[in-house]
Amino acid sequence: MKTKEYMKKLFYPESLAYIGATSRRVWNIMGVIERGYKGDIYLVSEKDEEILGMKCYKSISELPDKIDLAVIAITKSKVKPIIKQCIEKKFYTLHIFSAGLGEYDEPGIELEHEIHEMLKNSDTRAIGPNCMGVYSTGGRISYHPNFSKKICESGCLAFVSHSGDLTSRYVTDCNNYGINFSVAASIGNTISLKFSDFIDYFSSDEKTDIISGYFEGFSQFREFEGRDLLKVLKENKKPTLILRGGVTEKGAKTASSHTGSISSNSKIWNSVVAQTGIINVATFEELMDSTIAFYYCKGLYPKVNSLILITWSGGTASLGVDRIINLGVDIPEIQDPARSEMQSMISIGSVANPLDLPWIGHEEKYPEICKIAIKEPYVGGVIIEAFAPRDFDDHHMLHHNNIMKIANYTREEGKPFLMSLPHIRGAQREKYKDILIKDKIPVFPSVERAARAFSNMYKYKSKYS
Amino acid sequence: MKTKEYMKKLFYPESLAYIGATSRRVWNIMGVIERGYKGDIYLVSEKDEEILGMKCYKSISELPDKIDLAVIAITKSKVKPIIKQCIEKKFYTLHIFSAGLGEYDEPGIELEHEIHEMLKNSDTRAIGPNCMGVYSTGGRISYHPNFSKKICESGCLAFVSHSGDLTSRYVTDCNNYGINFSVAASIGNTISLKFSDFIDYFSSDEKTDIISGYFEGFSQFREFEGRDLLKVLKENKKPTLILRGGVTEKGAKTASSHTGSISSNSKIWNSVVAQTGIINVATFEELMDSTIAFYYCKGLYPKVNSLILITWSGGTASLGVDRIINLGVDIPEIQDPARSEMQSMISIGSVANPLDLPWIGHEEKYPEICKIAIKEPYVGGVIIEAFAPRDFDDHHMLHHNNIMKIANYTREEGKPFLMSLPHIRGAQREKYKDILIKDKIPVFPSVERAARAFSNMYKYKSKYS
Repeated sequence: MKTKEYMKKLFYPESLAYIGATSRRVWNIMGVIERGYKGDIYLVSEKDEEILGMKCYKSISELPDKIDLAVIAITKSKVKPIIKQCIEKKFYTLHIFSAGLGEYDEPGIELEHEIHEMLKNSDTRAIGPNCMGVYSTGGRISYHPNFSKKICESGCLAFVSHSGDLTSRYVTDCNNYGINFSVAASIGNTISLKFSDFIDYFSSDEKTDIISGYFEGFSQFREFEGRDLLKVLKENKKPTLILRGGVTEKGAKTASSHTGSISSNSKIWNSVVAQTGIINVATFEELMDSTIAFYYCKGLYPKVNSLILITWSGGTASLGVDRIINLGVDIPEIQDPARSEMQSMISIGSVANPLDLPWIGHEEKYPEICKIAIKEPYVGGVIIEAFAPRDFDDHHMLHHNNIMKIANYTREEGKPFLMSLPHIRGAQREKYKDILIKDKIPVFPSVERAARAFSNMYKYKSKYS
Repeated sequence: MKTKEYMKKLFYPESLAYIGATSRRVWNIMGVIERGYKGDIYLVSEKDEEILGMKCYKSISELPDKIDLAVIAITKSKVKPIIKQCIEKKFYTLHIFSAGLGEYDEPGIELEHEIHEMLKNSDTRAIGPNCMGVYSTGGRISYHPNFSKKICESGCLAFVSHSGDLTSRYVTDCNNYGINFSVAASIGNTISLKFSDFIDYFSSDEKTDIISGYFEGFSQFREFEGRDLLKVLKENKKPTLILRGGVTEKGAKTASSHTGSISSNSKIWNSVVAQTGIINVATFEELMDSTIAFYYCKGLYPKVNSLILITWSGGTASLGVDRIINLGVDIPEIQDPARSEMQSMISIGSVANPLDLPWIGHEEKYPEICKIAIKEPYVGGVIIEAFAPRDFDDHHMLHHNNIMKIANYTREEGKPFLMSLPHIRGAQREKYKDILIKDKIPVFPSVERAARAFSNMYKYKSKYS
């Protein structure tokens, strides 16, 4: 069976088994039940007779053959015989949750090599060990019950990660910003299915428009993982954002004790980046910001690498310009006649770009002044900075409605609109962010972070337009 | 009168005048009344007979001489004759709120030069034009009614800024992180009192332990402002954090249209930085983080430039190490016998440093394992990463109490403890941050930002210990 068919079994299983189920740890089963999973579920438990009203089997031998996905959550000392049984029963895919193997000590590395050999010569594929597993909105499965239950039809995000905790955090953060997933997978030590297999699947998945990943290094279990990743990425044309951990020597050592990956080979990685269109992000924050930008600015990726910055503080303007210029993005001066027209409408502030327009954010002329600049052909997009209000009163709504006018006008012009909404007044920021996201306004915590996301969109656009 | 005596008049005025008071804009007067200001208040208004129950005078000539601080909030065309009157009445200090002068156009620059000459040859000093004014907790005055009313006795923060909006944002953010100010001032275009005058005052102010500022460039109204700032900073031994705007050529141009400052002279600035102990921060975020670190880690600034990173995610650990190493801070491997002792207490995860300790954050042994590493002499401080809980239930409290044990132990060892609390779940993050800040735990949005603040503390300590 081809790898992509195994992927279908993993993300859209019609039968599920939980091996090592216990009544103390039901959240992964809950994650499936709560979203109305339609397939068969089999629980195997040594101690429990019944979990969540479902019968428990004593052993794998009692289960039917050819189960699509089996989750193995047992202590590492028992992993090998259990996997042997799963292979014999011709289960299609396994999620080996068990940790403390290759990332932990020498006996763990040895054990991984043995399991790798067993799987290699079988009709079974696996993710893990040492991973959280799968989230598939269409497949109605999720290792975490709290992930969004909204089923993706099209235009979604797909994610693959060597780290389970970062998967949980990323999915939660993305859900919180209204972003819908097709699928996500925490794949751990990758002794069977590899990082490149997932990117390959995502690149031809109809539901997926944007791909992202957390990469900790090439698997020691496949000699040509670098070459494979290069091949896959060269064929892929979807925006693909990759965050890489273990870049420094010390970080590589940490990664090795995390997933046993060989992350020290920066040469291979850099060669992959240079030869493909992937967006190689530097921090988790940049991954989040770029995800938000690519998701909400779809169809509006900038043709020109330049921004209008709209603030109502000269200090923010000066600092913002410094950061934007340092990112290699231009802040072009607005030219006449546009500039003179704008100038005639204000008495303090500046319209040169940045548009520093104090005190008039609530007035009708505010969006009108901005529009004059936005339509200029040398302008690639717009960043506006605003703050979450203390009160969502009429006065605030005047300003908010002005922002929406500017946003909609920018988008009608085919240009991306990004908003900096700093983390001030946490609860109100959350509330205002939700309002903006509902209107598909991408929101960032600072001008700099918005500009970096803009710059990544421009890089993609200039490569694939 | 010496400059420092003018500063006393500005921050602790015994009499106040508002020239150009209107019933439509009372927030700056409210900021004074609401904090129980004890001195005399005089309002001068062309239109209103009475504002907030206080009588309005028609003209400055009706006011007594020698008022300590007069706020001038009138249209720019009338500024010059008003200032002339203030000088004649021997008012000590003026806050020229009026904008649209030197930062706006040629006639504005000309006007500023005329006002500068008038003030230079008088017994009156001024801040502004184009500024928000003064916040003084002990002086019971504040240009914004919402700034904290807590009066500073000692150990506080003092701030000076060329930007009014950044002053408002910084004070609000700092208040939100429990930080108490002695004084803060938005000083605008600085045609009379200069940036260096404020740093000089702060450096000998008994209530002030930490100094910070937003600097947009040297004033064109004092030839030797660079030399003066150098002199003041050389004598000052307090931690001094300066954020500079207008660093790039384009940013400098923006700054010039903001406050009319000559910010392009990076040479002078870099020479000041090289010859003094100031912490030259690069972003508003770094200014905030370093303020929080210096404020809450007082007496614990690190002697060794190395960190223990405690996470419960291998992905966060790998990424965190990369960022910390890139900042020039070490993540030393824990040595035997400490390491063996720690290793014997876990079955998965890593104790090499980072301490990646999944699943045991709620157990009693968690702080005990960490303590073994913290007391090692080659460890300079601790960063721990945690997340705001969905529910503040008993389970969360177990983890929180463990964090507090680790924090208190670190501080008893004379080392700084910093916490990364990412911006996930905005409302809960705000709540948990408040709980932590009450226990004087400095909180940051990421491991990287915590580490940068740590690095700045080390730089200061290595210069002044």
